[in-house]
Amino acid sequence: MMKNLILLGSTGSIGENTLDIVSRFPDRFRISALAAGKNILLLEKQIRKFNPSIVSVSDSKTADALRARCSGLKTEIVAGTEGLLKAAAFPEGEMVVSAIVGAAGLMPTLAAIRAKKNIALANKETMVMAGELVCQEAVKAGVRIFPIDSEHSAIFQALSGNQKKDVRKIILTASGGPFLHTPRGQKEKVTPEAAVRHPNWSMGKKISIDSATMMNKGLEVIEARWLFDFPGERIEVLIHPQSIVHSMVEYIDGSVMAQMGIPDMRGPISYAIHYPERLPLDIPPLNLVSSGMLSFSPPDDEAFPCLSYGFEALKAGGTLPAVLNAANEEAVAAFLDHKIGFLKIEEVIKKTMDSHQIRTIQTIEDVNYADQWARKEAGALIEKLQGKS
Amino acid sequence: MMKNLILLGSTGSIGENTLDIVSRFPDRFRISALAAGKNILLLEKQIRKFNPSIVSVSDSKTADALRARCSGLKTEIVAGTEGLLKAAAFPEGEMVVSAIVGAAGLMPTLAAIRAKKNIALANKETMVMAGELVCQEAVKAGVRIFPIDSEHSAIFQALSGNQKKDVRKIILTASGGPFLHTPRGQKEKVTPEAAVRHPNWSMGKKISIDSATMMNKGLEVIEARWLFDFPGERIEVLIHPQSIVHSMVEYIDGSVMAQMGIPDMRGPISYAIHYPERLPLDIPPLNLVSSGMLSFSPPDDEAFPCLSYGFEALKAGGTLPAVLNAANEEAVAAFLDHKIGFLKIEEVIKKTMDSHQIRTIQTIEDVNYADQWARKEAGALIEKLQGKS
Repeated sequence: MMKNLILLGSTGSIGENTLDIVSRFPDRFRISALAAGKNILLLEKQIRKFNPSIVSVSDSKTADALRARCSGLKTEIVAGTEGLLKAAAFPEGEMVVSAIVGAAGLMPTLAAIRAKKNIALANKETMVMAGELVCQEAVKAGVRIFPIDSEHSAIFQALSGNQKKDVRKIILTASGGPFLHTPRGQKEKVTPEAAVRHPNWSMGKKISIDSATMMNKGLEVIEARWLFDFPGERIEVLIHPQSIVHSMVEYIDGSVMAQMGIPDMRGPISYAIHYPERLPLDIPPLNLVSSGMLSFSPPDDEAFPCLSYGFEALKAGGTLPAVLNAANEEAVAAFLDHKIGFLKIEEVIKKTMDSHQIRTIQTIEDVNYADQWARKEAGALIEKLQGKS
Repeated sequence: MMKNLILLGSTGSIGENTLDIVSRFPDRFRISALAAGKNILLLEKQIRKFNPSIVSVSDSKTADALRARCSGLKTEIVAGTEGLLKAAAFPEGEMVVSAIVGAAGLMPTLAAIRAKKNIALANKETMVMAGELVCQEAVKAGVRIFPIDSEHSAIFQALSGNQKKDVRKIILTASGGPFLHTPRGQKEKVTPEAAVRHPNWSMGKKISIDSATMMNKGLEVIEARWLFDFPGERIEVLIHPQSIVHSMVEYIDGSVMAQMGIPDMRGPISYAIHYPERLPLDIPPLNLVSSGMLSFSPPDDEAFPCLSYGFEALKAGGTLPAVLNAANEEAVAAFLDHKIGFLKIEEVIKKTMDSHQIRTIQTIEDVNYADQWARKEAGALIEKLQGKS
């Protein structure tokens, strides 16, 4: 059976990995639609290889340039927010791989859900910013949301064949990132180039920085809460530097189910798009003998306060998780632009959260309002910090 | 919903653990029948506590003694092979917990299957001696066999929610027993008292010796082959001294599902008797931080040849696994009786296997014939070895 996929964020790391899987199983998947930003060189290659019916890019200028390169091809090229939402809800697609990085992924994912498409979710911001709302919409539309994040895929696999009432705890593992043992004083001087070098996973820049601050784990805790409809008080984080155990579920009988593997995003992607079956991938088998000992330690909240901000935002609820996320995005962008130091990322997030008046979320507009408010607030903080340095 | 259980081997380690679970969930389980050997003191207690309809003991003398102790109680007391088979097929029981140790467990388990009862199987000899036949009978009777062995329970849990066609490998873990790092020369002088001290599990004597020789893992490989209808060439063994990961399943997408926990047989027992739901047990939660690092290494076939005998018997098939099992039982009994040294166990097994003419198994009589033949052969070898020392 052929499955028609819509791939949002096709030129990123998850997007490329998804297309790698699709190209290996042409009898199982077809690409109906692609969405990306401005990387028209790569997009042109993808269009020629996968023949999507529609492709969306960031703006009309980029669209024109892409059209010029793809003249004679049947693919419709659209642009901007309108184009993105059109691609996300494209009738022919059955499942949407939501892999746009950051808050920009929320609205197209929601559009896809409303168009009754199952979601393979890599964009954690969708759940962080608007988890409750998104889950309600998914129930209403009768669609399912499958996780692509390796931790959430592990949890999803470890829940398979079990009943939710029997779950005692969800345990997310964290590599601890490149600065797990770096003293705080030295982190002051960390460069973006050093911070994006993740020890185990090859990922995009934004996510690599999130891993270095452990904000990614804070976001993942919130994501897990909504994806699995599970109370935050029973979600735990364990540092596991080898990144072999991708996450675990503990049951009421004391049994712990863990999913392990070589770090390779094609595993979680293929599981999400082909569930409940698995695809034969050429990922090297896990060798537990050569991979050395597996170790686990509790996270250090003082060294990595961003993790606790995630728990804090989840507990407070309402608009605070969206604020946390937006402040983080702004701070990480400023750090990558050499505007602020590494340790200022957590400071910007904390201060933005502290000055926010939490509101309950009724509609998606409440989410977008909080997102905009936080970006303005964080932006002002960043400017002040720049003035100082 | 109340489930009526028949418990074969009630005074052993698995039996006692099963009754512990039953006593905690009196609204879920009722004990319809018990079977044990000669431990009438413990049996009397069990009868008074669980009120079974029928109890079987080893012989009529034991039955008389037990009747005297239980006069006035409604429990029917039966004896011998006939009594055991009657208890195993007792109409009121829905599920049989098969926990008699050794070859003696085969016939009552088969009787239970033929009486259309689901099986919770702790008696691995059933599968080692007559796996193919037993599985055919189970299919014919329309019953299921749930594993109680911790490794097989782990595999069963790691298979849950997955399709068998997607399995690449089954990986059984082995603690390596108390002599994992003991040089061969020193093993020569090992006493039964030292050999029964397992580092992680509290078990019966026979199984503790099997663990010290690693014959248990050889038997478990054969058991796994039949329980999961999975080719022996794709079953592997890994030494994991911490006994935290109880076994694993590797899938075609590179994903490895592992089941972990504190070593406590009540976990696997409760999963088998209550599947697909889990029971809240007071087993201490697994603490991966305090349990220290998890390590894995390949088994050493030279130090532990019994493991390879298991693979050998599985590959050759026919009556050889039954011969392997019987020779091992005789050799272990002789060792526990201080008749032969520790390293002679493997010698007796190997020589018995080597002098066996393998036959195909058509009926259960072929199995029993091989079992008897091997006991005689092994007995003669043991006598010769005794003469020498």
